Amino acid sequence: MANKDLYFMKMAIEEAKKAFDAGEVPVGAILVYKENIVIAKGYNQREFTQNPLFHAELIVINKGSKILKQWRLDETSLYVTLEPCPMCAGAIVQARIKKLIYGAQDLKGGGVSSLMNIPGDLRLNHQVEIVSGILEEECGSILKEFFKKLRIEKKTD
Amino acid sequence: MANKDLYFMKMAIEEAKKAFDAGEVPVGAILVYKENIVIAKGYNQREFTQNPLFHAELIVINKGSKILKQWRLDETSLYVTLEPCPMCAGAIVQARIKKLIYGAQDLKGGGVSSLMNIPGDLRLNHQVEIVSGILEEECGSILKEFFKKLRIEKKTD
Repeated sequence: MANKDLYFMKMAIEEAKKAFDAGEVPVGAILVYKENIVIAKGYNQREFTQNPLFHAELIVINKGSKILKQWRLDETSLYVTLEPCPMCAGAIVQARIKKLIYGAQDLKGGGVSSLMNIPGDLRLNHQVEIVSGILEEECGSILKEFFKKLRIEKKTD
Repeated sequence: MANKDLYFMKMAIEEAKKAFDAGEVPVGAILVYKENIVIAKGYNQREFTQNPLFHAELIVINKGSKILKQWRLDETSLYVTLEPCPMCAGAIVQARIKKLIYGAQDLKGGGVSSLMNIPGDLRLNHQVEIVSGILEEECGSILKEFFKKLRIEKKTD
């Protein structure tokens, strides 16, 4: 496990914590240009924005393309605490992102290894390097804590 | 083939023509609320915006959620001239769109029938009704014409 990957995944976890505090499903993402330039940070904001497109990954892709002034983000790496859903996995391909690094698996909805492998699909016109399991336990435990809290709150309603 | 589907697909083709005129891959989309209220129109603007997320489908989902002030678009139908890519197919699931109606197939990159079937995947937490082949020839011919024009322009460069 590269030190760099740990460093950026910790930064993504800090973003996920912001989502947690805001009552959103805690997923955070970081977009890194070239080797080590952080060009975008983001966390899931679906509830706050009431917009289904505001997943952490789409937020950093949107910011990143604005900063680089191009749709082709082929010199970037995307770090995210949870395995991307099919929408986000597809967006990573569309943006030609070079490398995807994620933490916890999403067995029920993941589009990278759990249900399908969109960024590695050889039939598509771009393939993404994939690294999984970086700080997996820490990335997953914040999600477990969130859903536990949600269940308790529902019971006491 | 329902008259309604023809009517809204013709409207989506008008959007695709705007993309064509702007030098974008000509794909157009329409989002219809309940039975017949058009709440969003859009066409592919990836080049103009230099943003990989500006596919026609994501544009109308974004507009639609702003208009309805909710991420859950379960009373809408999305019309699009080309089979959605995995990103857009995944977004249609995320937005809980009720029905997807598309024209031409995308054999190289389609995420609905050609390469995979994301909106119909029973393992995901929402399934979308799918109607394909509405004005297929007309939807496809504008794309063929666009790529033919592009090849001629490249040769004369």
